[in-house]
Formats: sequence, C-alpha cells, structure tokens
Amino acid sequence: MSGLFLRTLREDPADAEVISHKLLVRAGYVRRVAPGIYSWLPLGMKVLERVEAIIRDEMDRIGGQEVHFPALLPREPYEATGRWTEYGPALFRLKDRKGADYLLGPTHEELFTLMVKGETSSYRDFPVTLYQIQNKYRDEERPRAGILRGREFVMKDSYSFDLTDEGLDASYARHREAYLRIFARLGLETQIVSAMSGAMGGSKSEEFLATADSGEDTYVRCPASGYAANVEAVTTPAPPDESVADKPEAVVYDTPDTPTIETLVDHVNGLGLGRTFTAADTLKNVMVKTRLPGAAEWTLLGVGVPGDREVDMKRLEASVAPADVALLEDADFAANPFLTKGYIGPVGLAKNGVRYLVDPRIVTGTAWVTGADEHGRHVVDLVAGRDFTPDGTIEAAEVREGDPSPDGGGTLVAARGIEMGHIFQLGRKYADALGLTALGADGKPATVTMGSYGVGVTRAVAAISEQHADEKGLVWPAEVAPYAVHIVIAGKDPAQAEAATGIADGLAAAGLDVLLDDRKASPGVKFADAELLGMPTTVTVGRGLANGVVEVTDRASGDRREVPLDDVVAELS
Amino acid sequence: MSGLFLRTLREDPADAEVISHKLLVRAGYVRRVAPGIYSWLPLGMKVLERVEAIIRDEMDRIGGQEVHFPALLPREPYEATGRWTEYGPALFRLKDRKGADYLLGPTHEELFTLMVKGETSSYRDFPVTLYQIQNKYRDEERPRAGILRGREFVMKDSYSFDLTDEGLDASYARHREAYLRIFARLGLETQIVSAMSGAMGGSKSEEFLATADSGEDTYVRCPASGYAANVEAVTTPAPPDESVADKPEAVVYDTPDTPTIETLVDHVNGLGLGRTFTAADTLKNVMVKTRLPGAAEWTLLGVGVPGDREVDMKRLEASVAPADVALLEDADFAANPFLTKGYIGPVGLAKNGVRYLVDPRIVTGTAWVTGADEHGRHVVDLVAGRDFTPDGTIEAAEVREGDPSPDGGGTLVAARGIEMGHIFQLGRKYADALGLTALGADGKPATVTMGSYGVGVTRAVAAISEQHADEKGLVWPAEVAPYAVHIVIAGKDPAQAEAATGIADGLAAAGLDVLLDDRKASPGVKFADAELLGMPTTVTVGRGLANGVVEVTDRASGDRREVPLDDVVAELS
Repeated sequence: MSGLFLRTLREDPADAEVISHKLLVRAGYVRRVAPGIYSWLPLGMKVLERVEAIIRDEMDRIGGQEVHFPALLPREPYEATGRWTEYGPALFRLKDRKGADYLLGPTHEELFTLMVKGETSSYRDFPVTLYQIQNKYRDEERPRAGILRGREFVMKDSYSFDLTDEGLDASYARHREAYLRIFARLGLETQIVSAMSGAMGGSKSEEFLATADSGEDTYVRCPASGYAANVEAVTTPAPPDESVADKPEAVVYDTPDTPTIETLVDHVNGLGLGRTFTAADTLKNVMVKTRLPGAAEWTLLGVGVPGDREVDMKRLEASVAPADVALLEDADFAANPFLTKGYIGPVGLAKNGVRYLVDPRIVTGTAWVTGADEHGRHVVDLVAGRDFTPDGTIEAAEVREGDPSPDGGGTLVAARGIEMGHIFQLGRKYADALGLTALGADGKPATVTMGSYGVGVTRAVAAISEQHADEKGLVWPAEVAPYAVHIVIAGKDPAQAEAATGIADGLAAAGLDVLLDDRKASPGVKFADAELLGMPTTVTVGRGLANGVVEVTDRASGDRREVPLDDVVAELS
Repeated sequence: MSGLFLRTLREDPADAEVISHKLLVRAGYVRRVAPGIYSWLPLGMKVLERVEAIIRDEMDRIGGQEVHFPALLPREPYEATGRWTEYGPALFRLKDRKGADYLLGPTHEELFTLMVKGETSSYRDFPVTLYQIQNKYRDEERPRAGILRGREFVMKDSYSFDLTDEGLDASYARHREAYLRIFARLGLETQIVSAMSGAMGGSKSEEFLATADSGEDTYVRCPASGYAANVEAVTTPAPPDESVADKPEAVVYDTPDTPTIETLVDHVNGLGLGRTFTAADTLKNVMVKTRLPGAAEWTLLGVGVPGDREVDMKRLEASVAPADVALLEDADFAANPFLTKGYIGPVGLAKNGVRYLVDPRIVTGTAWVTGADEHGRHVVDLVAGRDFTPDGTIEAAEVREGDPSPDGGGTLVAARGIEMGHIFQLGRKYADALGLTALGADGKPATVTMGSYGVGVTRAVAAISEQHADEKGLVWPAEVAPYAVHIVIAGKDPAQAEAATGIADGLAAAGLDVLLDDRKASPGVKFADAELLGMPTTVTVGRGLANGVVEVTDRASGDRREVPLDDVVAELS
C-alpha cells in the first residue's frame, strides 16, 4: 500500500447521496471528471476488470462471440432506423472536420445489424450471437449517483440473430440464464421484472433489477404469484363491461368552489342524490400534448383516469413513446379556448376532435362524475359507451401497493431497484429497416429476427457497492474484490513486518491477490482503511505475533479469530 | 469454423493500399464503419486482446498502475494548457445538452496531471507511474491504411511522475526497456529514433518505429555509428565559419530567363567569372507564413536553403510547431509588393523587416548566388555575415541519403517505419500549467516532472501484419496469433473428422487455442483460408490418416512434415 496510487478520504463527497457513490469515492476507486463522467483509479480498475471477466466468461459459455464496435459512429445507420432523431437531446452529436455528422453510440443495434448483414448470406450462418464490452454515451439530463447513472459508461451489449421466432425464443432464454449466472457471480441480488421495450421497438422484454432502496426504478411484485414488473410495464386489469340500460341519466349540476376532487366529491354528496360518491367515482381528465420525434407540431391528448389516482408521468411517457409528452401550458389553453380548465369533460373533447384515451378501468357501462365543459359545472352519471366513447385506453394512472396483480394472483407491493440488465426480443424492426435477410433452407430469403441484451458494467460496480456496504465501508463479494486478502502490519516491530511479508508471499504463491498495508501509519488509520476498502478477509499481524498468532477478520460478518501464524496461509489458500 | 462469425474475402478491398489493410479485411479481422473508424470481428478481437495483455504485463512489470480515464472530456483542462486551441481541427469537439464544451481525448496529459495532483501531497507519494489502455480520437485529415492511421484507435498511454530530473531519467529508461520487451514479444522489428517532441512540449523524446516500407514515417540512420532519427529530428551539422576578408565583392547581374536553379547556374557559369558554380552555391529563399494557434494574423517568414535542396515541409512544420505554416499564395505576394517572385533575396527581406531563417550550412563567410530583389536580376558573392545577417537558423531543408550523420560517425541512409511507440520527457510543462507540486523531504514544495509514453495498440495489430505476411495471407507470431493451431479436415471421410476432433480436444486440454475447420467446403478453400488467416501451425487431417499420419505445416516457413497421429498432440503441446 505504500506504493499503491491511493488516497482514502474521511469525508463524503459533497455531491454524493447514495452509499455506493460516497464509498467508491472515499475509498479511492473512482474520481469525478465532469458531471456523469468518471475516472477509474487502480482499485476500481481491478473490480471493473473482474466484473468484465465474469461477463465475458458467461457470454462465451452461451456461444457469444466477442466483437468491438467504434463509439464514434456515422449518422447514416441511425438515420435509417429513425433513432438519430428519436434519441433527442440524450444523443451526443458532433461533426468531423469535413462537416459530416457523427454520434457517440448509445447502443449499437444498427451497427450489429449491418455487420451481420455484411458477413452472412444463408441459413447456415445462423443462429449467431455477438457481444461487445464497450463505452456507451448518453447525455443524461440529470446524471446522478456517481457511476450509477453516468454519461460515459461501460456496457456489455449483445445481439442474437435467428431465422425463426422459436430460435429467438431460445436465444432469449439462453441470455436470461446467462444473466442469472452473471448476477449471482457478481453477488447481486436481482429481481426479474417485465418491462416496456420503449424506444427500442420489439416485443418481449424483461429487466434485471438489483434490489436497492436507492434505485431509480420502481417496480411492483405480487408476493403470492411471483409476478413482477417495472411500473411502466404494469397492465391494469379491466373490469367486465357493465350494462348501460339500467344507468341513470347524465345530469349537469352547478358545482361552484370545487377546485379539487375532494371538494367535488363533497359537493356531489351534498346534492341529495341518495348515493354516496367517492373519488374513485370521478373521472379526471388530464390534458397533455404529444409530439413524434422530428415532428414540428404538438398534438393535444386528453387522458382520463379515475379521480382517486394521479397520472404517473413515467408511465404516460412509456405509453406514448417514442413520442414526447408534456403538460399543457397557459398558452396552450389560450390557443384552445374550448378547454375549460378544471371542468374538462369527455363530451367537449369529442366535440372538438381531441383524441381521448382512458385508463382501462373506464369500461363500457361505468358511470362517472366529470367535467361538463362549462366553468363551475360538472356532470353526474356520464356513462362510458353511452354518453361518451373514448378513442382507446392508455396505461397512465399511478400503480399502487394493494392494486390487484395483472395475473390475478394477488395484490401488488412496491419496491425499488437499479436496472442492471435488460433483455429484449427486438424482432425484425432493425432487420427490416436495414435489409438484413438470409437465404433460407427452402431457397427463399427470410428476414432475420433479433434479440438485444445489455448489462451495465460500470453500473454493476456501483450496484454491488450498494448491496454490499455498511457504515464503515465497502464489503466486496469474493469474486469481484480487488484483493482477496488485506494484510495489516499493526505495529512497528520489525518482526511483524517480516511475518506479514511472509504471509503475503505465501498467499501470492497460492494464487491469491494480496494487499499489504506496509505504510507508516497508525493502527487506527490502517484498520479504518481496511474496513473502508472492503477486501473479504483481513489478516492483522500485531501483538499476538509474540504468541505465534495473527488475527483473521471476515469483513462481511465482522467475525474475528486468532490463527497460528504457521497455519494462516494454508487456511486462507 | 462452421460456427465462427467469419467471412473471408477473395478480393482486396477497393480502398486498401497496404498489405495489412488488405489482409486484415480479407481475412475477416476488421471491418470499416466510416473513414478511419473500424469494427473488430472475433478473430481481430483475439489478436487485440493478446496485444493488450502483453502491454499490460510489461507495464505492470515496471511498476505501472492501471487506471482508466473517460474519452469524453471537459474543455477546461485542455484550455489551461492551451491544447484546446493548439490541436486545431484534429480535435473532435462537441457540446453537451447544456451547451458546455467537450472533446474526445487525443491524449490525456492534462487528466493524468490533475489526477496525480488530487491524490498526492508529499514526496512519499512519488515516484508513480500510471497507465491506461483506452480509446483515443484524432480527426485526421487523411485517415489511411485501415487501422494503421485511424480516427478512433486504442492506445496504451502512461505517465511517470517524479520529483527530480534523475528520477525522470530513470522512469524514462524503465519505459524504454519495457517498450523493447513489448515489441520483441509482439514480434515487431523496431528501430529507436530520436524524435521531435512537437506540440507536446518537453525535451528528450524517442520513437519506436516498426520497420516497414509502407510506413508513413521516414527516418535516417547511420550504419557506421548507429545514429538514427526521425527526419524531422535530424540536426544539420554546421560547417565552420569562414573568413569574410578574402571574399569577392557582391555583384548584381542581369539573369533573364532563369526560372529554375538549373538555368540560373548555367547562366552564371556563362558570365565568365573564372569559377564554376553548382546548385549548392545558390541560396534559395522560400517564402512562407506562420501563425500561432489562436492568433488571427499570419506572419511572413523567409526560409533560406542551399539551392540544391528542397524545403521539406514536414521538417519545416516540426521546426515552427506549435505554429501553423503555409506557403504564400498570390494574394500574399500582391499584399507585399516588395517580394519579387523568383528573385527574392536576403537584402530585400531585411530591408522590409521580414524574419529570415536559414539552413545551418549558411554560416558566416559563405558566399551565395541569390535573388537581387529585382525582376530578372541575381546577385553573386552575397556573403553571410557581411552582406546579410539572418535572424537565425532553421531545420527545413530536406535530409538526403549520403548526408553526414549529425554525430560525425558516417553518412546517413534513409528508411521508412510505422510509429509504434513514443517516449517523451515532458518535464514540468503540464505540472506548471496545472499546479502539480509536492512537498519535498526538505519541507519545500517542488514541481513534479513528468514523462509521457505511448504505444499504438490497434496500430500494433496492423504493424505486425505488415511485417508478418506474404502473398497468401497473414503469418501471426506465436504470442499474438488468435489460435495456436489451425486444424483442417481435408476430406469427407468421417474418420478424418473424428481424428481431427480428437487432436483438437487433445491440444485444447494441453492449454492451446485451436481452430478446427469443420466446414463443408472443398480442401482448396480450406487450405487457402488457413493460409489467409495465418495461424502459426496447421494440422491437415487428410488421406495420410489411412497410414496413421497427419501433415503439420509451419505457416512462416511453409515447411510440411508428416507426423504420426498418435504423436501430434504431444509434439505440438
């Protein structure tokens, strides 16, 4: 350690909120260069290399072949698939000296597709799985949490190419197994959740979330059935349609001073209608506008949800992707005077040709208290399928703990996680856009179907730190620890230094990576650093040496025990 | 091979001029994505990984500690050292979504300096050597020769930090030894040459050139003394000054129709002056303009060289760096009417205040035939130090085979090479600019002195291919070959496939990487691919199997011999 390029810090970095960020900086694993852009110091490099080796090993095991693409990429392939525009401001774009457009690759679907197109021709060349471990770039609006969400980061991305849907299913299943093995070896506790495929296109898609309270991704799961999904991917079970025939007539009432759902419910309950209404009986119409990438104009969209639920903007965004979505501003209301703020109803929207999508719970025959399109007035018993007909349904309402599980197996609970891996069945979107076909065994050309699979490599280092840390520092799982054993020379007695060096040499000869703290520092500083740096096992050579023993500490459990000097190498090897 | 992602090509790529480019593309090691931007296919990846492993091994051996910096870097550190501007159009620049300036790192001196500044404080922290293997970016005007000169490429760059000049000398020497070992292990024949440090600043600097006729770098060496230098770094020995006293008077003559040095010499020899003049007696004055990075205005510069030599623009550029240099255009002559094109002389330049630098051979007392600053007139016997006084000397004249070696040890011969490594004594330039000091043992702060050392990693793959190839394909040295043994199943007899698989398994069990050609292809196609792909040893399992033998071919020598099937694994292991 006297020669190791390392300075540990006693204070948390000012910009750090999550424990992995605090500890990886304090323990000298990473350093910030710019927002979301980090350097890796020697200890961090060792962890990163071990993580990469595990991923490489498991990818090779499922027949993946490693390739490497540039990070600096020409615009054309991304133009062909529409992603040059779709990515919006998250894409780093630049020009070369000749004015040609380039980008820093956020993912490489296009390039992999074109590579396979170039190197294959017939069904004999398939299936094939290619992967790379490579720098990716996304100009995040809010890079956060150190290396957890960076703007330059390392990903393993792989792509499978098959000629049949069954082949894609098999490739997808192989990746799923490989990911389970990878995360187990990394010491990461993960939850597989159903996910939206979002801007990537495609059909089936699952995420591997490292469970962590600091995670950015909220997911729900059903303890009874095992169902789990990213909140964006939760589908709301629709109740059965109801008969319209026996519903009361819709009646408009004056509803002064009802600025909130709560005051509206109180007011309606005071009308003496002989029924008790709750917020769940009201229909809240939230006005937004959407715009497809590259389009100049925004389009109005009305979103109807039961009044006891908020619109979840992330769910709404996922539902309308790749279009952008934004709430209406005052100027939008001014430009559309038929929108009576606070009293918008389905009838007025239909009359003015505004697209109107509703929560799946709003089925035919359900009756609602909602806006009457006049200031200070609401309508009661407006019945879906009789008095108004939505243009379709949309998943935009918040998901809550206690909601029924979409698989009917129980109720949902919420948790948070860090997205560590994502597996997609892309299907033929990219192959279609870029013309990737192969001559089938029947002599006819067939379009190739693809899967896309990613693991956040630098993020994994952060996620492991989130799950394996305590108030004293990092606690590395054995397979990713920079060093297997940390040896502390506790005192100034030359015999201690000699014994410690002997142990270090013995362990190194047995193939273990050893970190020897030979610094001129106090025992307290050394012990604190050993705990902060987080190697799985610490050997302290101190006063006990006079009695022929050293102390072996397990970082994770804190257990300490004395071991005879002569046995320690054999025991730890 | 039936499952390997590989398609070999029979035709050279249209844009390929050098053999490494042709063969690495034909053999399926790399593919072009954009000018100077390449992808690596599975075979190429294996070579690249082996090259990286050798470099890592040798860097660790000299105590280097591996770190990793981002490629996407903020402008500020490069602004502090002036390189944001100095790099000119070769720097890829971009803005993030907030409008902040970023660049893609061409080298990382600034970042390493700042990192060491952050992690160190006292002399106890030194010396330290850090390295990374990482993507670099340079927007080359003319990317060429495949991966030999790319715009995105992998480099190993390392930096040494010492408190004393002697320490820097030692760090530099260690790197020099490490580089010799690296290139030997890579199978690269290299020549160490003295080099200019150019825009990097600093003092001592040497390049490791892989000898190759296709190399972009011309160097000279003196077979007698062992001197070798990049052409830019050759210093011209100055002859001794001569006495001015006994020189004839300068006389101006009409010299009509003398557009070239040759016609001028003929004309002067026809004047009946009783002497014979040669081109070496004339003084050619080449007008250029220079501009410092960031400056708005160009400044005139006259460059005087003996008339028998051309100005070498690369040497001139290196001499004026970091300033840019360009030849005068018609507009420049129009703006400076005192410049009489074709008849420019030192006297007129001095009269008009134009800076005038001459070749070191133009010493005091030498007499020259040169322009008389009037159309159609030249002056004879214009004597340096008497009739004109240059503002200094400049290395701009071409270096020729047969020139005396600067070390006085003989004459120079010219050769070409590929720049594979570069070692610099940077000194304190970056430490000064970025404030990197450390508290010395004497309690006083001392500025750190740095060395900078680079190896072209992707370029090494190309250089190895240049040196190890023949008309049939690549010929990999053992330590970098993707596979040690290439096994060809020559016929359709199942016994051959079985024997070949047995050999492959046996060799794999012995720790060798084996490529088994199990494709349904003709023996001719298989043999041609084996030669194209270039593994060191090929085992052919063919008709000889009936007699219990297989054929072992050495790719480099072409030697073939029969080996009993039962012995082949033991013999090759």
